Amino acid sequence: MQVRGFVAGAVAANIRKADRLDLGLIVSQEPALTVGVFTTNRVKAAPVLLDMERLRGGRARAILVNSGIANACTGEQGMRAAEATAAHAAAALGVPPVEVLLASTGVIGQQLDPSRFERAMPGLVAALSPHGFDDVSRAIMTTDTRPKTCARTIEIGGREVRLFSMAKGAGMIMPNMATMLAFVCTDAQIVYPELLRVVREGVEHSFNRISVDGDTSTNDTVLVMANGAAGNPWIDEHNPEGCALFRMALHEIFQELARQIVADGEGATKLVTIRVQGTRSPEEAESAARTIANSPLVKTAFFGQDANWGRIIAALGRSGCRFDPERVDIWFDEVRMVENGLGHGAAVEAAATEVLRRERFRVMIDLKEGGEAAEILTCDFSLDYVKINADYRS
Amino acid sequence: MQVRGFVAGAVAANIRKADRLDLGLIVSQEPALTVGVFTTNRVKAAPVLLDMERLRGGRARAILVNSGIANACTGEQGMRAAEATAAHAAAALGVPPVEVLLASTGVIGQQLDPSRFERAMPGLVAALSPHGFDDVSRAIMTTDTRPKTCARTIEIGGREVRLFSMAKGAGMIMPNMATMLAFVCTDAQIVYPELLRVVREGVEHSFNRISVDGDTSTNDTVLVMANGAAGNPWIDEHNPEGCALFRMALHEIFQELARQIVADGEGATKLVTIRVQGTRSPEEAESAARTIANSPLVKTAFFGQDANWGRIIAALGRSGCRFDPERVDIWFDEVRMVENGLGHGAAVEAAATEVLRRERFRVMIDLKEGGEAAEILTCDFSLDYVKINADYRS
Repeated sequence: MQVRGFVAGAVAANIRKADRLDLGLIVSQEPALTVGVFTTNRVKAAPVLLDMERLRGGRARAILVNSGIANACTGEQGMRAAEATAAHAAAALGVPPVEVLLASTGVIGQQLDPSRFERAMPGLVAALSPHGFDDVSRAIMTTDTRPKTCARTIEIGGREVRLFSMAKGAGMIMPNMATMLAFVCTDAQIVYPELLRVVREGVEHSFNRISVDGDTSTNDTVLVMANGAAGNPWIDEHNPEGCALFRMALHEIFQELARQIVADGEGATKLVTIRVQGTRSPEEAESAARTIANSPLVKTAFFGQDANWGRIIAALGRSGCRFDPERVDIWFDEVRMVENGLGHGAAVEAAATEVLRRERFRVMIDLKEGGEAAEILTCDFSLDYVKINADYRS
Repeated sequence: MQVRGFVAGAVAANIRKADRLDLGLIVSQEPALTVGVFTTNRVKAAPVLLDMERLRGGRARAILVNSGIANACTGEQGMRAAEATAAHAAAALGVPPVEVLLASTGVIGQQLDPSRFERAMPGLVAALSPHGFDDVSRAIMTTDTRPKTCARTIEIGGREVRLFSMAKGAGMIMPNMATMLAFVCTDAQIVYPELLRVVREGVEHSFNRISVDGDTSTNDTVLVMANGAAGNPWIDEHNPEGCALFRMALHEIFQELARQIVADGEGATKLVTIRVQGTRSPEEAESAARTIANSPLVKTAFFGQDANWGRIIAALGRSGCRFDPERVDIWFDEVRMVENGLGHGAAVEAAATEVLRRERFRVMIDLKEGGEAAEILTCDFSLDYVKINADYRS
């Protein structure tokens, strides 16, 4: 897909390993309104710190992104390296450095070598084209097994508005994003406050509701660029229909990327929605759903296709959520395995085990205490997760 | 080891699998002062609920313990089954049912069959002997690969005082105990308030400072029985030396059992102490140490013998602990791998990797913010952890 006014491209820059796409560039021909959402980890990588500073003005021209090295925990030297790489891109594009944003993913604690960026820059700029998004989506992969993209086209005031997005995920996926990068390019004409609102709200209900392993990265970054090239009537408070259409499209994109990230979680073989409902407060629902979604015992049982509801109820019991164990119902998709705290015997267990053979299923826990609910998307915990993470740097 | 006034024994009662020791009994010939500490999980197994009720009087005669079925999430029927099994033991021993405590470990959500206990009781009582502790320590194993015991003899006022203890652990080991059972039998003559104080304090610094997988069981139980048969001068506020000696012995026993539990954590190949120091509050030190100790990414790196300090610092950053990333030091035993937030290069990394080849090592994180510290004992996260837990019920 093309998005008016955007070009993109990627090259192999030998950042950490030879002969793989590891450096990508996305450019808007005009400065674009840009909103960023970043990791909540107290330790923030150099590119995150740089973007947070540069996005105070709310606009940008380009995103330079690399995989291989995260440029996190690299101190002053890392910060200078980040600035240098952005300066190389700015010079090659003929734009002010402050309009170049950065994102990095990879190993923490190693220094980036800006000279590799400098050497790669002519080839990278030459590679820019309206068809280059797919190459960038491959350049940002680390332990991802496949690129993650999603596109939408909507019509606002008779004009076609396009949104194209890409993401990488895999490990360290938990609350508040993860080693998770997501970029959205849209040609929508939208006012800044509306874009900010829609992005933040969307992140809350997508990237912040997924979990692979409970870890949160130092580099999480969501960047949304809107360059207005579609020429649609402004999306603002006087255009509620336009707001609704754009909001729906962007949130669908976020949710689809979030799903792709969890489904491609390191070693994942199952995509599982954990829904906790009937709690007294929304916070309790979320904390209970997260505790279950992150429990290694629950996740290994999913991998083993074992309808081990005891582990679910044990995780629930340590989550801090208020409930009466003798009122809990647990459903695996359409099978009510537990009713009022008690298992339903062998026939129901066999039916639940069938559900667990599915690649996607939902576990619904009803506490019958109140009217609140929350959902977290998670995956199972497999042998391959351990293999991938025991070997990641070697 | 024998402890005056105690007998013990175990039999195969076919509780869940045939032909393995799965039912044990510990008996004090006289009613013993008894202190219990139980799971903080909101969901408590029937035997835990029964013990909490029966220990209001602070004394007991016997502990009947089974593996195979946890009798958790079993409702009214489970509670009646628990009472029935205790009644069978009480009848066989000729003691009031209220003096019989229970402990169970195994699968959650399955009902216990009290008739198996009834049938096994004559053999179990016949098996009781002063030498029977070791059999009980084997009967309580589930995924444990070896029995866990620890004994101490001290002298108080010229009299020999003995303590013998056993434990089981393996999975669901985290804050506030785990599928963790520990029993201590001592012939010490000690007043109840002192016993209570010493036990609670000891649990806080041993079983509550270990983590295998971040899960907390429904069945955690520590029971300490003191029958006074040693005839030592009373351990009370008038006997500070006796208090100190007993306290030291009991705490050493708890810590040794805790170490054995983590070292035998499901699939564990490494025993790792995580120490966080230099925090502004003890709560922050504990929360930071726990977050690191439970991070799947950190634990798989330990398994891979990878000195991946980036994952440690990323876990630290999401723990809520206040610190400046540019002041953090990280040590692997004697090797300072990170100084003021920066890695020390290839030679130091090679030295740190050597440390990670050890079976036991310590990771020390110094935040240089204040004077507080905390330690958590943990293990690595191996392929076998996943294999064990994906297959546990099959």
